[in-house]
Amino acid sequence: MPDPVRIEADYLIETAFDPRQAAEIMAGEQSSGTFVAVPGETPELKARAAARVERLDLVDEVAAPSLPGAGKPAGSKPVYRRAVVTLSWPMDNIGPSLPNLVATIAGNLFELKQFSGLRLLDLRLPSSFAQKYPGPKFGIDGTRRLSGVHGRPLIGTIIKPSVGLSAEATGELVGTLADAGIDFIKDDELQADGPACPFEDRVRAVMAAVNRAADRTGKKTMVAFNLTGEIDEMRRRHDFVLAQGGTCVMASVLAVGHAGMIELARHTELPIHGHRAGWGALSRNPGLGWSFPAWSKLWRLTGCDHLHVNGLANKFSESDESVITSARSLAEPLFEHAPMTTVPVFSSGQTIRQAAGTWAAVKSPDLIYTAGGGVVAHPLGIAAGVEALVEAWNAAMAGVAIETHAQGNAALAASLDAYPAQGA
Amino acid sequence: MPDPVRIEADYLIETAFDPRQAAEIMAGEQSSGTFVAVPGETPELKARAAARVERLDLVDEVAAPSLPGAGKPAGSKPVYRRAVVTLSWPMDNIGPSLPNLVATIAGNLFELKQFSGLRLLDLRLPSSFAQKYPGPKFGIDGTRRLSGVHGRPLIGTIIKPSVGLSAEATGELVGTLADAGIDFIKDDELQADGPACPFEDRVRAVMAAVNRAADRTGKKTMVAFNLTGEIDEMRRRHDFVLAQGGTCVMASVLAVGHAGMIELARHTELPIHGHRAGWGALSRNPGLGWSFPAWSKLWRLTGCDHLHVNGLANKFSESDESVITSARSLAEPLFEHAPMTTVPVFSSGQTIRQAAGTWAAVKSPDLIYTAGGGVVAHPLGIAAGVEALVEAWNAAMAGVAIETHAQGNAALAASLDAYPAQGA
Repeated sequence: MPDPVRIEADYLIETAFDPRQAAEIMAGEQSSGTFVAVPGETPELKARAAARVERLDLVDEVAAPSLPGAGKPAGSKPVYRRAVVTLSWPMDNIGPSLPNLVATIAGNLFELKQFSGLRLLDLRLPSSFAQKYPGPKFGIDGTRRLSGVHGRPLIGTIIKPSVGLSAEATGELVGTLADAGIDFIKDDELQADGPACPFEDRVRAVMAAVNRAADRTGKKTMVAFNLTGEIDEMRRRHDFVLAQGGTCVMASVLAVGHAGMIELARHTELPIHGHRAGWGALSRNPGLGWSFPAWSKLWRLTGCDHLHVNGLANKFSESDESVITSARSLAEPLFEHAPMTTVPVFSSGQTIRQAAGTWAAVKSPDLIYTAGGGVVAHPLGIAAGVEALVEAWNAAMAGVAIETHAQGNAALAASLDAYPAQGA
Repeated sequence: MPDPVRIEADYLIETAFDPRQAAEIMAGEQSSGTFVAVPGETPELKARAAARVERLDLVDEVAAPSLPGAGKPAGSKPVYRRAVVTLSWPMDNIGPSLPNLVATIAGNLFELKQFSGLRLLDLRLPSSFAQKYPGPKFGIDGTRRLSGVHGRPLIGTIIKPSVGLSAEATGELVGTLADAGIDFIKDDELQADGPACPFEDRVRAVMAAVNRAADRTGKKTMVAFNLTGEIDEMRRRHDFVLAQGGTCVMASVLAVGHAGMIELARHTELPIHGHRAGWGALSRNPGLGWSFPAWSKLWRLTGCDHLHVNGLANKFSESDESVITSARSLAEPLFEHAPMTTVPVFSSGQTIRQAAGTWAAVKSPDLIYTAGGGVVAHPLGIAAGVEALVEAWNAAMAGVAIETHAQGNAALAASLDAYPAQGA
């Protein structure tokens, strides 16, 4: 599909009013109009600057409003109609500016009285955005080059306990994991640069362990160090990771924000592992906020090389269907000539059991698959835990049942008992 | 109340499980724990790093879950209990870092399966945060000094149409408003630096008009120029506004983000007018996301001198009660020795009619009161529109009925017909 000439955004709306009229009010509020016509709002000006309702498809209707505060027509009992609406804006209004794009497509409109539901579903941008924002510098190719993992997912884990370990204890734990041949390790998003575990001390201890293991095995585990912080702090921490031989940095994108992530991405010489802490507030109500495919496009444009998508049969409240939609969306090109695909990161309760389902859903090995207990609680040790996950993925990609594949592999065989199938 | 030693946050939770157990899981997820105990999570480590449930008060119960995806105990039909919970964290985990505070108090917890509702209600911080973040540089005192308005609210308006006017047309409109004696004007949040109205061209045209009016009248209208953008763009735009004699800059705080706003606030020599475009996505579901008193504390700490709170009888979906709670919260001290109060900005359908109610709610003249049609649609002209609003506020502050006060004032008298009372 060619890139659009205007900015386009799709919304799920719910309204007790005529959906077309409500959509027109939304288009007005987010462009030239106000609630009432004002002096200076000429037909020429509207033709030049107004947002347009490009499309409206009715979906269904509900008897009760999904959100409080919405208005309704006077008189008879209202019905709340749901529709998918596409609005478009001329580039002349804001130019290719990511922060101003956010205020335009996702500004005051959530508060409009016309709507008892409003959710941003998707987003398509003119190619001038790709000229201003180059997107991920590394993506899957750079991640594979730096980690030395090819033809299968990167198998990873998260440093736990989330907080409380000293820098030295963290280094020891990472040493054990690196010795076990793990591909990828990440900081917890709660661990950044607190007094109990200062960033530079942690990086020094961890990279000493990683480099020691790499010298012996030839394989350097990729560690995503959480540098979330202020602009200068993030730049300084990035440079320190790079100087210590590190190969990845992590940031909580909502805690940093758009302007900060743009700045970090311009500066970075390492892949950015994007954490979505706080995402639930924007998304958990299905009639409000943002869908992941729309929201993640902002961070792909900004330059996130990896983005969290939760995992199948996760321990959180998200459905498998939602996780799959999120993961697939990261592989869809953002622009015709600049795909800006980002590596999906699967996590939360992942074991050998979700490999087949994840493969069936995304049909690609280009992902990071992180497990906590799924690695470290393996009865034959951490190395066997890593091996079992690699073999579970090999089985999935070969279309072989995990039980069959396990017959030739002690690590995977032991996993079958240690991580029983759900419902088994 | 003295500042706490630990970070404290209050949440409204809704759960089908035992609320105390659910709160403990939340505390674990946001600190040392994971869903299951892991090696290394010793009692000593937990005592040092774990979040604590400080308090739990049951509120009520509902039959159906407010949000999808929540779990429930096996067996009988669940009841969803609502409670207010206070969690606390040791400063040792993150230190006084605003971005990492966000990931800690408002991270993954919104997605926890234990909850069918989770909203951050309030926030109290140790005083070390005040040492790192100085808060608003100007506040109401600086705003009054720069605008020359004392003893009453600043009367303001918004440049409309939101987008579409050229820089020259914007300058002309501002000239008319400044000649009419208005105190404050703001850009629309959709207007930043697009090709149709470049930032520097607009500032040049607007400040020429403002300075011209000031030379004649001795009063310089404060104009909040929307500099929302990337870090370097915002710095450059700020410097340009300052060089042209401007007295305020505006940013959409959610579009810029925490790291970006911190950077802008460090750089600025002008008051920052904080716009909350996008806020509805975080707040409109009453059982999810953020309350304004909690959320605004982040931006007060960052350094926003003004923050939007919507207005009474507004055209959006927010209730008067919510608006009043928001406005009052900005006057509550953030720290014992560093109040960091921020000026509330009232807007949306404001006219002479909401002055008395707003005064009764906040009992303070320290606010910005912006009106669109409430100023420019006055039958005797814009100057009369400004005068009528000033007199409506004088009446409110003196405790005099607006009709009585209007007997001596033609501008206010004409307003009574032009802006009839709601329901009249």
